[in-house]
Amino acid sequence: MQDTHISLAHGNGGRFMRELIDEVFARHLLNPDLDTQEDAVRLALDDSELLFTTDGFTVQPLEFPGGDIGSLAVHGTTNDLAVAGGLPKYLSLNAFIEEGLAIEQLDRLVRSLARTAAATGVEIVAGDTKVLRRGEGGGLYLATTGIGVRLPGPALGMQAIRAGDQLLVSGPVGDHGIAVMLAREQFGLRGDVRSDAASVLPLTSAALEFDGLRFMRDPTRGGLATVCHEVCHATGLDIRLSQPQIPLRDTVQSVCEMLGYDPLFLACEGRVVVVVSASDAPALLDCWQALPEGEGAAIIGSLATGEGRLVLATELGGQRILEELEDDPLPRIC
Amino acid sequence: MQDTHISLAHGNGGRFMRELIDEVFARHLLNPDLDTQEDAVRLALDDSELLFTTDGFTVQPLEFPGGDIGSLAVHGTTNDLAVAGGLPKYLSLNAFIEEGLAIEQLDRLVRSLARTAAATGVEIVAGDTKVLRRGEGGGLYLATTGIGVRLPGPALGMQAIRAGDQLLVSGPVGDHGIAVMLAREQFGLRGDVRSDAASVLPLTSAALEFDGLRFMRDPTRGGLATVCHEVCHATGLDIRLSQPQIPLRDTVQSVCEMLGYDPLFLACEGRVVVVVSASDAPALLDCWQALPEGEGAAIIGSLATGEGRLVLATELGGQRILEELEDDPLPRIC
Repeated sequence: MQDTHISLAHGNGGRFMRELIDEVFARHLLNPDLDTQEDAVRLALDDSELLFTTDGFTVQPLEFPGGDIGSLAVHGTTNDLAVAGGLPKYLSLNAFIEEGLAIEQLDRLVRSLARTAAATGVEIVAGDTKVLRRGEGGGLYLATTGIGVRLPGPALGMQAIRAGDQLLVSGPVGDHGIAVMLAREQFGLRGDVRSDAASVLPLTSAALEFDGLRFMRDPTRGGLATVCHEVCHATGLDIRLSQPQIPLRDTVQSVCEMLGYDPLFLACEGRVVVVVSASDAPALLDCWQALPEGEGAAIIGSLATGEGRLVLATELGGQRILEELEDDPLPRIC
Repeated sequence: MQDTHISLAHGNGGRFMRELIDEVFARHLLNPDLDTQEDAVRLALDDSELLFTTDGFTVQPLEFPGGDIGSLAVHGTTNDLAVAGGLPKYLSLNAFIEEGLAIEQLDRLVRSLARTAAATGVEIVAGDTKVLRRGEGGGLYLATTGIGVRLPGPALGMQAIRAGDQLLVSGPVGDHGIAVMLAREQFGLRGDVRSDAASVLPLTSAALEFDGLRFMRDPTRGGLATVCHEVCHATGLDIRLSQPQIPLRDTVQSVCEMLGYDPLFLACEGRVVVVVSASDAPALLDCWQALPEGEGAAIIGSLATGEGRLVLATELGGQRILEELEDDPLPRIC
């Protein structure tokens, strides 16, 4: 790592963040159970197989169309358990609250968090609050840590991915990123885009029925492209994405064009990307499209022997290589 | 709760914080497994009995004599598992890093955290980092969430406490609070007080051998007096503390006198307070004093039928009632 001080790019899900994790955190914390590539870790305690994961939340503004930091704090962590093949059971909650936050707003956010937890079937069983001095806190930061139990299904992971496998996404990408961005007043734009924040458990539970399922991930910070980069990086395979197949709302596309964002790098909070065998891909697509959460699902690309590149095949027959995220297009998005 | 906005007093471990937890968090999040009175929650997953807890860390400065935010983040959470009667096994880590933090310092802090985890016998198995914009972060905030397994021993909890039980503390109080305060340059004082930050597992493991053990707690934020207030509040019993018996370093006492702090309200990070039957108290004291972590242990008071008051019997034979903490004497102490 070349840098001497933390920059916002160290938080964006892209290359600088990976380097920070590898070179500062993983280097010191390395142990056989810590896998920085996975969404949740398996813990062996007696006979039960548990999944364990954690996530931090710094979204700004704290409330936005389709969600708020409270609902996000439940979805973010339970979705990580879900894509790891688990059924979320318990959460802990850390709140870092800035001096001066309106208690009425805090109350609304905690209520939203509680409702979302109930709807997702998880119990919040431990918590801690810290109050930060005015000017040291950005309103509210949350962290949630989740415990789940492993559901029956194939063994998942990057190592299960093979050339010839196909890539599916469960719905339109970039909604969360654009909804949050439009909710920031300084952009001076208002749109009808709502965050896709939701539990992906119905989608992941359905996918686990397929023996050809290799890998699942929720494309949050860094978006679809960053999940693809992680797969390329870990497997050495090329991913070829077909741009016309990638589901994208017209409004998201126009805002992106207007402001110069690439929607493939924008966060989703209720989508799943999976790698599945070519033989199971059409059936999984049908299965997802029959669910309300997967109406907009699509097969968007495939894996091939190569040099670990992410290649985008465009509508007009051209192709270009998508590089890893470096600058942070949208800090505090989740 | 009367307030409309968050103040620093909502974070100090005292009355305002209890009201915030009860009226905002517990009210929305209430479920049968959430007990805001306990350090760690028992989880029933298959046959194993797990303990689960979480803690946030905002100490300022990030490094101080005797520790740093990294070692504190391990001790704080593993000590919560230990006083709940558990053996800590796994931790997750959330880092909220402010833009501009020197990577060299971050590296040093994460290394300290890793060393402390190894020395405490826990593995850090999950993590997440978020980067906060400059001016929105206070350098570094950490949260750790721990899983432990229950050790054999008596059933612990406030409900086990009886009139006639005795109160022990494992060593001098207030060292951590004063060490951190002296490390803040604005006080213009330098002392030789080191934080007591350490694992309390040797102390709690030893205490679990006693059938008369009722309750254990590590007196962190809000100090010894706040633990006593929680016991009074939950049991309705009076606690009578004998001031001359409470272990206190001369340097801590003089700094407190100079600056007007009450050491009974200052954080410890390596001490345990226990309630134990009167018959087991002398043997537990001997047992603790034979351990390096418990050299300074003392029997400091007893429980009696009353009105839930905390009474301090002074050296000169007087007595005064200690009220709950309201102002925050030292924000960002842990």
